[in-house]
Amino acid sequence: MNIPASLPGSAPATVTTGPIGGSKKVYVEPPSHPSIRVPFREIALTDSQTPTIRVYDPSGPYTDSDIRIDLAAGLPLVREPWIEPRGFQAIEGRTVRPEDNGGAGPDRLVAPCPAQRTLRMGQPGAPVTQLEFARAGIITEEMIYVAHRENLARAEAWKGAGTQIADGEAFGAAIPAFVTPEFVRQEIALGRAIIPANINHGELEPMAIGRNFLVKVNANIGNSAISSGVAEEVEKLVWAIRWGADTIMDLSTGRNIHNIRSWIIRNSPVPIGTVPIYQALEKVGGDPVKLTWEVFKDTLIEQAEQGVDYFTIHAGVRLHHVPLTAKRVTGIVSRGGSIMARWCLAHHKESFLYERFDEICDIMRRYDVAFSLGDGLRPGSIADANDEAQFAELETLGELTKIAWARGCQVMIEGPGHVPMHKIKLNMDKQLACCAEAPFYTLGPLTTDIAPGYDHITSGIGAAMIGWFGTAMLCYVTPKEHLGLPDRDDVKTGVITYKIAAHAADLAKGHPAAQVRDDALSRARFEFRWEDQFNLSLDPDTARAYHDATLPKDAHKVAHFCSMCGPKFCSMQITQDLRRDVLAMEAAARAGMATKSREFVEQGAHLYVPSAE
Amino acid sequence: MNIPASLPGSAPATVTTGPIGGSKKVYVEPPSHPSIRVPFREIALTDSQTPTIRVYDPSGPYTDSDIRIDLAAGLPLVREPWIEPRGFQAIEGRTVRPEDNGGAGPDRLVAPCPAQRTLRMGQPGAPVTQLEFARAGIITEEMIYVAHRENLARAEAWKGAGTQIADGEAFGAAIPAFVTPEFVRQEIALGRAIIPANINHGELEPMAIGRNFLVKVNANIGNSAISSGVAEEVEKLVWAIRWGADTIMDLSTGRNIHNIRSWIIRNSPVPIGTVPIYQALEKVGGDPVKLTWEVFKDTLIEQAEQGVDYFTIHAGVRLHHVPLTAKRVTGIVSRGGSIMARWCLAHHKESFLYERFDEICDIMRRYDVAFSLGDGLRPGSIADANDEAQFAELETLGELTKIAWARGCQVMIEGPGHVPMHKIKLNMDKQLACCAEAPFYTLGPLTTDIAPGYDHITSGIGAAMIGWFGTAMLCYVTPKEHLGLPDRDDVKTGVITYKIAAHAADLAKGHPAAQVRDDALSRARFEFRWEDQFNLSLDPDTARAYHDATLPKDAHKVAHFCSMCGPKFCSMQITQDLRRDVLAMEAAARAGMATKSREFVEQGAHLYVPSAE
Repeated sequence: MNIPASLPGSAPATVTTGPIGGSKKVYVEPPSHPSIRVPFREIALTDSQTPTIRVYDPSGPYTDSDIRIDLAAGLPLVREPWIEPRGFQAIEGRTVRPEDNGGAGPDRLVAPCPAQRTLRMGQPGAPVTQLEFARAGIITEEMIYVAHRENLARAEAWKGAGTQIADGEAFGAAIPAFVTPEFVRQEIALGRAIIPANINHGELEPMAIGRNFLVKVNANIGNSAISSGVAEEVEKLVWAIRWGADTIMDLSTGRNIHNIRSWIIRNSPVPIGTVPIYQALEKVGGDPVKLTWEVFKDTLIEQAEQGVDYFTIHAGVRLHHVPLTAKRVTGIVSRGGSIMARWCLAHHKESFLYERFDEICDIMRRYDVAFSLGDGLRPGSIADANDEAQFAELETLGELTKIAWARGCQVMIEGPGHVPMHKIKLNMDKQLACCAEAPFYTLGPLTTDIAPGYDHITSGIGAAMIGWFGTAMLCYVTPKEHLGLPDRDDVKTGVITYKIAAHAADLAKGHPAAQVRDDALSRARFEFRWEDQFNLSLDPDTARAYHDATLPKDAHKVAHFCSMCGPKFCSMQITQDLRRDVLAMEAAARAGMATKSREFVEQGAHLYVPSAE
Repeated sequence: MNIPASLPGSAPATVTTGPIGGSKKVYVEPPSHPSIRVPFREIALTDSQTPTIRVYDPSGPYTDSDIRIDLAAGLPLVREPWIEPRGFQAIEGRTVRPEDNGGAGPDRLVAPCPAQRTLRMGQPGAPVTQLEFARAGIITEEMIYVAHRENLARAEAWKGAGTQIADGEAFGAAIPAFVTPEFVRQEIALGRAIIPANINHGELEPMAIGRNFLVKVNANIGNSAISSGVAEEVEKLVWAIRWGADTIMDLSTGRNIHNIRSWIIRNSPVPIGTVPIYQALEKVGGDPVKLTWEVFKDTLIEQAEQGVDYFTIHAGVRLHHVPLTAKRVTGIVSRGGSIMARWCLAHHKESFLYERFDEICDIMRRYDVAFSLGDGLRPGSIADANDEAQFAELETLGELTKIAWARGCQVMIEGPGHVPMHKIKLNMDKQLACCAEAPFYTLGPLTTDIAPGYDHITSGIGAAMIGWFGTAMLCYVTPKEHLGLPDRDDVKTGVITYKIAAHAADLAKGHPAAQVRDDALSRARFEFRWEDQFNLSLDPDTARAYHDATLPKDAHKVAHFCSMCGPKFCSMQITQDLRRDVLAMEAAARAGMATKSREFVEQGAHLYVPSAE
């Protein structure tokens, strides 16, 4: 059920609310911390043995029937009771300027989100970031929240299976049988995981990105100069997290970006990432050569105050790397990378991102904005994969990681791109080695260049593999990649494809309890519980629609066949008969009646269920 | 352009003809064998350096503008001049009986394809199968055809790159730099490859399935009791091969299957596979327990005479395997496997497929029908992957392979199914070991169970990986898998997804020249040759439609941006500027004018192309 939420003015008119079919939102309160309510999506089954299955749920209050959505007021401030006691300084904040919104005139200006928030800033000497708290031995509420969120179903799997909880090959990852808040703290302290959580993003439901946690998915949204607008952007966020996106990157450019961003952050339960250089470029009229440290610094503060949780910073593009790209088939394909390369070459010096990296760290630390160190030189084609330019930048990113850590900042590392299958693992191995196990965050990679229109699939293959090898978060690719701006359907297709990749990776890594949902769905399939099978799918609506396309009647929802094979050739039905016979034979054999049992089978129930022909 | 081809009666009214946009059919005649015309699809580019690219083309005469399609007459008999001199016996053939068409009454009976063909049968003592010719040291026309077909673009790649033709990890495969007819003969003689080519399928354009050749894709078609009919089936074949399916399995059941099959084979340029037990089951009224050797044998001869190129035979399901499936989450999910398991258990003895395997070999040899040894006990869920039942059957398939080889038959082995990523490679390794490198032919595997509606993707991931590890042919899965019968769009989506998986595997294996198309497309992308980018895609229609959804005007087809990033943020354009600057700087530096060159860059061309805003 999609209930439109009202919104004044020129801002979005509706967003999608209400639970996904067959499920509802539930919250779990850790007994020791009743102020923490961890959300799950609970799928109701018709199976008496397993009446419900809980799944990880990044969709926020939008899928909670009991919460009224008011976009102008913003989401509930779940983190306020945790942040308030930390003693951060309340500040006035930077004044918004016309160039923050791309100089949009009064006729075109979108009003900012009116939700009022206390604006805060950390100070030197006292912990601000999750990394600093973790190093100080302090377990934050965010860490407790994440531990319970990640632990989904593990308690039961652990109980049932003893220590041997799941098979898998984790390539050196240290996935625990059970996630404790202390484990989360240790992973953060070691830099192996991050919780992107700006102290000015109180609406956030915390989540972790790290190799020893569930693999996460990012979805990109954002207008471009050519298409899209305000109305679509907030709904794109809501829509993407509905289907499972764990974080959202807002890649908007052009007019109104500051004000649109205010609507997005105030209404986002997931971390929001941005690429500040895009907005900085707008502020200097679009000429990379005119970019300056002052404009960039101002943009960092502007976005950090708004509550952005992580920044992509392309500080790894160094002057001497640029000529390495000259002979590539597709040169530099990162927007940020090409902008910085152009700047470096024009000024013939290292970029201000690299030279001022210390200062960038100090700004980001004050708000706990995490670094996403951008791979500005990632390969844009199979031909350019794993080349000198790419790996030279990766080494620089490793150096920068250590600087950011030393200054208290959380860090993840961005990765490629376009990489054929046999070259994927080397990316992961080198990243772990260069960046001291800081979380890896990759775009795909696409495993071939020959299928524009299907690059969610060319990249979903690579994403599943690199997720298995150890990538902590996968940036989605939609079917429109390389061709155009994704619409609503494309966003959904991209998110679902990447949820598949992430889950396939979790299974292969041997994540405890990852298989619980697979097993529940397979049992439903085998027992012809069609509604359960639909509801357990990543996309119940599509599963149901596909089934109903050939067998629309309600009677077919209980039928012991589907239109693929028809009633006569259903192997599942034949096997159910078979199993009954095997069990009968075994029972009879135990009773010394082997002959009798064979007779039973020979005269047994007919193979076929009645055909509707 | 889709030109309807006419057809009388109740049979199909139209099939899709005409070339795929931006391309045309070309034939290459090996100088030594002018009677052999090897088809390719030639894509025209606007690039003066590379005006055309040729790609492998299984679509047959349907995409040839110069051939008039007449379904009633069947396709041209390209193999007739090769087969005729081989001295096979012309035979009368078996009389068609009402039960061959499921007892369809006159009002429902579809007329058979009227195309007249000489019916032939091989004899003992003289070679019939490609395996027997190969062992006798004879290079058949089919082998020459395949060699030229596989060699696509290798001559040039070889010339340009010397011996180091491609990097890759082939896991012990022996991919040659250049495919000679003698190499094909050797691979066939060793049993490492097959050319499925029934001597009664003269319309066939031969192709090879083997680990040292390009990875192939099979698409399933077929009606079921619930849906679909004659009209759709022939068009499904034409449609599936149009998008790249290398073989087609006709899994039809129910009425008219004999006559529909006659239309399919007489009009198929690709190998047709079937599962004869399905038709045999129809002949005994649908009760597996009533199946007999006599009915099955009759069906084998019936279908072999029609020209079926490979048979799935589930002879590996042995009586003692059946109880191994009793505790599975999803039991037996192969239709043929469940039918045979039921038979074995009811009669409490080994199946006639296993006990009469020698006789089956002798029948199939007479027509050169290849074995596709069915994996009746493949896992149907992540929980059941790589279990005792599955691997016990695989060992039996290995024994049967050697028996079939000894009797002159070509063999490939079917494989799973549902397998998480970390268990995929073991399937390939065991298959190679058990089956002495006979080609592996897998269904997916699906890497998770939780995404019904998207199982082309869950399985495309596994297919790409197992293809890389050595699987020779990938059986496609459509989005409707587990839910319903695929329609035209589903078939196309399934085929394109599997072409991606197969090509990604070829790239990763280091297949010489596989990367030629990737590089051509990436160059077109970098140079904003939009039409070339569309036409080089596996699906030009979809690529073009996606682009035009946001930028429909013709002017945008030459634009140096797309709607993803808009004109201001196009990294490709920025990089082109950059490259020009780097080259200018290098040239200036060589001329000793370093300062001058820096000035040039600083005053150089603006970053942006004009915005259409």
